[in-house]
Amino acid sequence: MAFQSVRPGALLSPVPAVMVSCASQAARPNIITIAWAGTICSQPPMVSIAVRKDRFSHRILTESGEFVVNLVGEDQLRAADFCGVKSGRDMDKFAACGLTPAPVAALEHAPAIAQCPIYLACKIQQVLELGSHDLFLGRIVDVGVQEALVEADGKINLQKARLTAYCHGVYHSLGPALGFFGYSVAAPEVLERRMKEIQ
Amino acid sequence: MAFQSVRPGALLSPVPAVMVSCASQAARPNIITIAWAGTICSQPPMVSIAVRKDRFSHRILTESGEFVVNLVGEDQLRAADFCGVKSGRDMDKFAACGLTPAPVAALEHAPAIAQCPIYLACKIQQVLELGSHDLFLGRIVDVGVQEALVEADGKINLQKARLTAYCHGVYHSLGPALGFFGYSVAAPEVLERRMKEIQ
Repeated sequence: MAFQSVRPGALLSPVPAVMVSCASQAARPNIITIAWAGTICSQPPMVSIAVRKDRFSHRILTESGEFVVNLVGEDQLRAADFCGVKSGRDMDKFAACGLTPAPVAALEHAPAIAQCPIYLACKIQQVLELGSHDLFLGRIVDVGVQEALVEADGKINLQKARLTAYCHGVYHSLGPALGFFGYSVAAPEVLERRMKEIQ
Repeated sequence: MAFQSVRPGALLSPVPAVMVSCASQAARPNIITIAWAGTICSQPPMVSIAVRKDRFSHRILTESGEFVVNLVGEDQLRAADFCGVKSGRDMDKFAACGLTPAPVAALEHAPAIAQCPIYLACKIQQVLELGSHDLFLGRIVDVGVQEALVEADGKINLQKARLTAYCHGVYHSLGPALGFFGYSVAAPEVLERRMKEIQ
């Protein structure tokens, strides 16, 4: 194997292509799909989204100081793609996609998307102008999980959410579970039990 | 469907659990596995990684101002998990995992991991202290792709890389391709052709 040097580009993969919902006093709820998102801190829990200045949602984010990250399951993928290529300047994307805004008590304006498996409600803490994109650093103030994904013991079963991943222009389902955090050093009996649990 | 509000946490998923390699004048090459990574800008291409202050690599990153993000294929997953739970204080992780440091011409100290499908070589542009984690913003100055992933026309075929995704404590392979960027609005003939191409 040998590396070929290519033009520097944003090739981090796979990434979550999430639907970010927003609204402001002046603007009806809108959705923008963002693949340039990442977790940036655990305590406090924070997530970043990168948004071009000329995107319709950029102003809504700046005005409201809020956004909601909605994870995308297979059933929402077509809508997510649509919300990534169409602009809220021209249409009500919630209506166009048959999606429902769900009020989030912790936020003033931005709704979650009722059909998505999980939402992370964020208050914008800082904005960094990096170049083509402005980076919005959001503090996660509330998380909502569809009741069907919460097990009897309170644990969240994300495998039931059938989440999707984005990889260099192609959306994928998630394939089989290959391991769990710490599996490479797990005791044999733990390995056997946990590997069965995640299948 | 109805949402259940849960404790705010870093539930963005799926994310790439990448191996970040680093080195400094004082420190031998080390690897730290990071799931809190994200693309933060396209022009210039930039990526962020979140690292706890007490991690062994934190000092190496600060001293050298460099790091390399190595994408993780299925064949490197066990090593990636190992490098996420063990500390470089106690061992040479390259040696322990049978991995090979590959020099990166654009960087002074940090090597890539020769066995990984793709590397993004980064110079640290800014560090943000956010709480439990410091966020290192890296400008991607060089990208290396295994020659086997570059098609005759120069396009990168990431599907051949068999990348892995991390989802709330569980590592997954990527499943079938479900669509491509813009598929929701593609003309029927484009849709048919491209969907065949990505299978």
